[in-house]
Amino acid sequence: MMSSLSKRKPAAKIKWLLAPSSNEWLQQAIANPVEILIDHAHCERKAAGAAVQLMFRYLCEPGLAEVLSPLAREELEHFERVLTLISSRGRYLEPLQAPPYGAALAKRIRKGEPERMLDSFLVAGLIEARSHERMSLLASHSPDPELRKLYGDLLASEARHFCSYWMLAEQRYDRDEITLRLEELAITEAEILDTLHPEPRMHS
Amino acid sequence: MMSSLSKRKPAAKIKWLLAPSSNEWLQQAIANPVEILIDHAHCERKAAGAAVQLMFRYLCEPGLAEVLSPLAREELEHFERVLTLISSRGRYLEPLQAPPYGAALAKRIRKGEPERMLDSFLVAGLIEARSHERMSLLASHSPDPELRKLYGDLLASEARHFCSYWMLAEQRYDRDEITLRLEELAITEAEILDTLHPEPRMHS
Repeated sequence: MMSSLSKRKPAAKIKWLLAPSSNEWLQQAIANPVEILIDHAHCERKAAGAAVQLMFRYLCEPGLAEVLSPLAREELEHFERVLTLISSRGRYLEPLQAPPYGAALAKRIRKGEPERMLDSFLVAGLIEARSHERMSLLASHSPDPELRKLYGDLLASEARHFCSYWMLAEQRYDRDEITLRLEELAITEAEILDTLHPEPRMHS
Repeated sequence: MMSSLSKRKPAAKIKWLLAPSSNEWLQQAIANPVEILIDHAHCERKAAGAAVQLMFRYLCEPGLAEVLSPLAREELEHFERVLTLISSRGRYLEPLQAPPYGAALAKRIRKGEPERMLDSFLVAGLIEARSHERMSLLASHSPDPELRKLYGDLLASEARHFCSYWMLAEQRYDRDEITLRLEELAITEAEILDTLHPEPRMHS
């Protein structure tokens, strides 16, 4: 699948992302605040799980656990905060069907090493970058002050997380190789989101 | 496998455990402080992974993530602290073959629900209780003051962790059912440790 997105330059603000989120997504998210909140809790939980999984896979890789363990802790802390807010609104975690986003990106991770590790860092970083971009939109545009505050508060660490994944890559791979691969993955990332998923999700 | 252990009463201090650790284990652990330290890092990491995995399996079970997410964060924090100490001694995480302990206990977890959830809590609690007991021994008997301090500092939260697993069980199961099953599992736990594993490990 190739589209016109492949010709676009990275957005200036977050260089990871090739295309900004659509207004359609923002409208969908604002119209379904609790569903997005529940999905967000799932995203934080999955991000923690992914960091722990990476740490387990590359157990004895120096300098990896030192970054991924605190990152996983922070994701869990966010998960707890979002869960508290969901509970305070009389709801709870509900099983939500995941949009195609995560699985489609995971498919692009090459199987052999050292490519697998590089792709794992870049895919995790791309997801963090997109979460950061979408949470910024919600922090500015949500009509609910409590949600604006929540998303605003969580923003800074999302930005730190994609920087962490970038640094993990930079310490181990050639800069040109990283940039080239990031561009390829960013095209996929933007293409997946080019069609709005009908169910409201953080990555619909 | 039945042994004389099945007739022993629970130890007074930690009711979870049927038998105290042997002096042979303590001598083995004291004679191999760095290997025990590296294994301890792996134990903290695995305990975090197990809590996250339980949280994922019973995703929408009210009151579970609220306990397991902070518990996983704390295990990761300990992992980081132990890793820092290992690094300060010029070593790093090394792949260590696990002793039979964890796998033998995991085998006793029944497959069907609701038994699976109860057994998962009790096995996790037993491992925490044993870690607590062994860390207490090291906190008192290690000839290395830095290690005595480390184990002493981590003790309190290990105790809190087996209480957490107990409470998770008590909120969901009949007290008699829990006690009966805990006794059965505690017999297995003590029997596994009845023979000292030749490689020095936290649960050898």
